[in-house]
Amino acid sequence: MSLVVIGTVAFDAIETPFGKTDKILGGAATYASLAASYLYKKTKIVAVVGDDFHKEDIKEIADHGINVEGLQIKAGEKSFFWSGKYHNDMNSRDTLVTELNVLADFDPIIPESYQDCEYLMLGNLTPQIQQTVIKRMHKRPKLIVMDTMNFWMDIAMDDLLETIKLVDVLTINDAEARQLSGEYSLVKAAKKILGMGPKFLIIKKGEHGALLFHGDQIFSAPALPLAEVFDPTGAGDTFAGGFIGYLAKVGTINFSNMKNAIIFGSALASFCVEKFGTEKIKNLSQDEIASRVKEFVSLSSFTI
Amino acid sequence: MSLVVIGTVAFDAIETPFGKTDKILGGAATYASLAASYLYKKTKIVAVVGDDFHKEDIKEIADHGINVEGLQIKAGEKSFFWSGKYHNDMNSRDTLVTELNVLADFDPIIPESYQDCEYLMLGNLTPQIQQTVIKRMHKRPKLIVMDTMNFWMDIAMDDLLETIKLVDVLTINDAEARQLSGEYSLVKAAKKILGMGPKFLIIKKGEHGALLFHGDQIFSAPALPLAEVFDPTGAGDTFAGGFIGYLAKVGTINFSNMKNAIIFGSALASFCVEKFGTEKIKNLSQDEIASRVKEFVSLSSFTI
Repeated sequence: MSLVVIGTVAFDAIETPFGKTDKILGGAATYASLAASYLYKKTKIVAVVGDDFHKEDIKEIADHGINVEGLQIKAGEKSFFWSGKYHNDMNSRDTLVTELNVLADFDPIIPESYQDCEYLMLGNLTPQIQQTVIKRMHKRPKLIVMDTMNFWMDIAMDDLLETIKLVDVLTINDAEARQLSGEYSLVKAAKKILGMGPKFLIIKKGEHGALLFHGDQIFSAPALPLAEVFDPTGAGDTFAGGFIGYLAKVGTINFSNMKNAIIFGSALASFCVEKFGTEKIKNLSQDEIASRVKEFVSLSSFTI
Repeated sequence: MSLVVIGTVAFDAIETPFGKTDKILGGAATYASLAASYLYKKTKIVAVVGDDFHKEDIKEIADHGINVEGLQIKAGEKSFFWSGKYHNDMNSRDTLVTELNVLADFDPIIPESYQDCEYLMLGNLTPQIQQTVIKRMHKRPKLIVMDTMNFWMDIAMDDLLETIKLVDVLTINDAEARQLSGEYSLVKAAKKILGMGPKFLIIKKGEHGALLFHGDQIFSAPALPLAEVFDPTGAGDTFAGGFIGYLAKVGTINFSNMKNAIIFGSALASFCVEKFGTEKIKNLSQDEIASRVKEFVSLSSFTI
C-alpha cells in the first residue's frame, strides 16, 4: 500500500515584493510529496528531470522518506524551468519563462514497486500524461486526486475532460471552476463539474479558504489569515499533498475525513507561503503541524 | 433596555441581471431593524423620511414590533432615494441616482423612550450624524456597533476617525479595511484599525464570509454558497442588524457570543439576497432562521 505522486520536479526562479531567488527546487510533485511525507510514510514520486538537476535536491526529497525510484534523470537533457514574478497583491503573477525541456516528451515510468498504489495524486501536468499514469496502474487505486489549471483548459480541454472522468477528486481554483463549467455561481459550477465524473470537487479560494462539494453536501474551510504572504508558489500543490497524505494516513474515504484532509492541506499550505519556495515546507516538525491545525480549529469553531 | 438602530429609511430602485424594481422600501435602518426584530423584540428606529414615503412601508416596519417613534416624517420634503445597477458578477454595482433630499439636513431626534438604549446600531450614514446620536444618549450604551463605507473614507475621513474612536464594534468590507488602514494584509489592517478605538472589528467579505478580530483572536465565518444571488442590496445592513440583534438577545458581550452573532447575521444576510429588496427579509419565520443557522453549522463544522 502506498501513495504515488506524479507531477513536475523542476527549477523555479521566483520574484515577489519580498525578494528574488536564483534557480531553486520547485515543481508540483516536489511540493505535494514533501507535504504528504509529513502525514504518510509510504510516499513515492513519478517525475522527470535533466542531468543538470542538483543531487542535493533529490537527496532532500529522499531524506523525507519519499521513494524516488520513479524519478527519471535524463542524460544530456535539461530540467523543466519556470520563472515568475508576483504582483504586489500576491494574488496574481506574470510567468516570465517556461522552458519545458525534459517535460516535452515525458513518458512516465511506473516502477513495479509502485504497483501497490492505493492513493494516486495527479499533480498539475498535461492531462494526457495524468491519464497515462492512471492506465499504467495494474489495479485502479482506491482514490485518485487530480489537480489541474486553467492553462490545460485553454489548450487541451478534450484531454482534460477525458481525464477528469477517471478521477475521484478534482482540485481547482474558483476562476478555473467558473471556466470549466461556464457558470459564475460556484454552487452551479460544482454541480456541473460533479456531473463530469469526480465524486468530490475542491474549489480553492486562496486567502478565502476552500469549498468541498460532494452530492448535495458542502464544506467551507477557512484559510488562516496571515500577516505576511512571502511567496505563494507551490501552495496549491502543498495543499493537495497534505490533503491526500491525510487520507492515506486515515485510510477511510468519507465526507468527514475529506473535511479533515482539507484542514491538514490548508495548514500545510499556510506554512508553504511563509518562506520562499520549499524552504519552509521541507523543514517542518510534527509539533508545528499539530499546533497549526489547532489554529484552524479555533479559527472556525463556534457553538450555537 | 432596548436596541436602537439609526440609519437611512429610503426608496431604492434596483436593477440586477434578474430584473428591475420601481421605488421600493430600502435603507440601512430598514434592513438592520427588520433583521434585528427576529431576534430581539425591543428594537427602535431613528431615521427621517419625507411625506412622500409610503404609509404601508412604515406600517410594515412597525408590524415587526419595531418602535418608529424616532422616525421623523418631514412635511413638504422628499425621502432619500438611491438607484443602482448591479453587474453580472453581482459583486460590483454602479450608482445611478443618489438624491439626499431629507437626509441633507437630518438632525436625529432621540425620543425620551429610547434613552433605555443598551445596544446601539449606527447604520451606514454620515459619521457626523452617527456621532451626534452617541452624544445624545444620556448614558453610553453597553454596546455600540458602527457600519460605514468607503464613501465616507473618501469625503469625511477626519469625522470618520473621530466616530470610530467612540464605538465598540466596527463593520466594514475587505476593500474598506485596506483603504482605512493602508495595509493590504487583513491581519495587519485589523491590527491598525483596532488601534483606532474599536475593541472588535468585523471584516465582511461577501461570498467569502466574514472575519472577526479582537486582540489577537480571529474568527473566520463562512458564507453560505448560494446557487443564485438575486439582489445583494441591504445584505450588509441585514448582517449588522442580525449581529446586534443576537447580542441584545443573549445580553452578554464576549468573543464566543460575537462569533454566534456573526453566524446569525450571516444567516439573515443569506436570506436577504434571495429576493429583491426587503421582500425576503420581511417575511421570515423563526423556523426558517433556525434551519438556516443549522446549515451554517453543518457547512463549517469538522472534528479533528
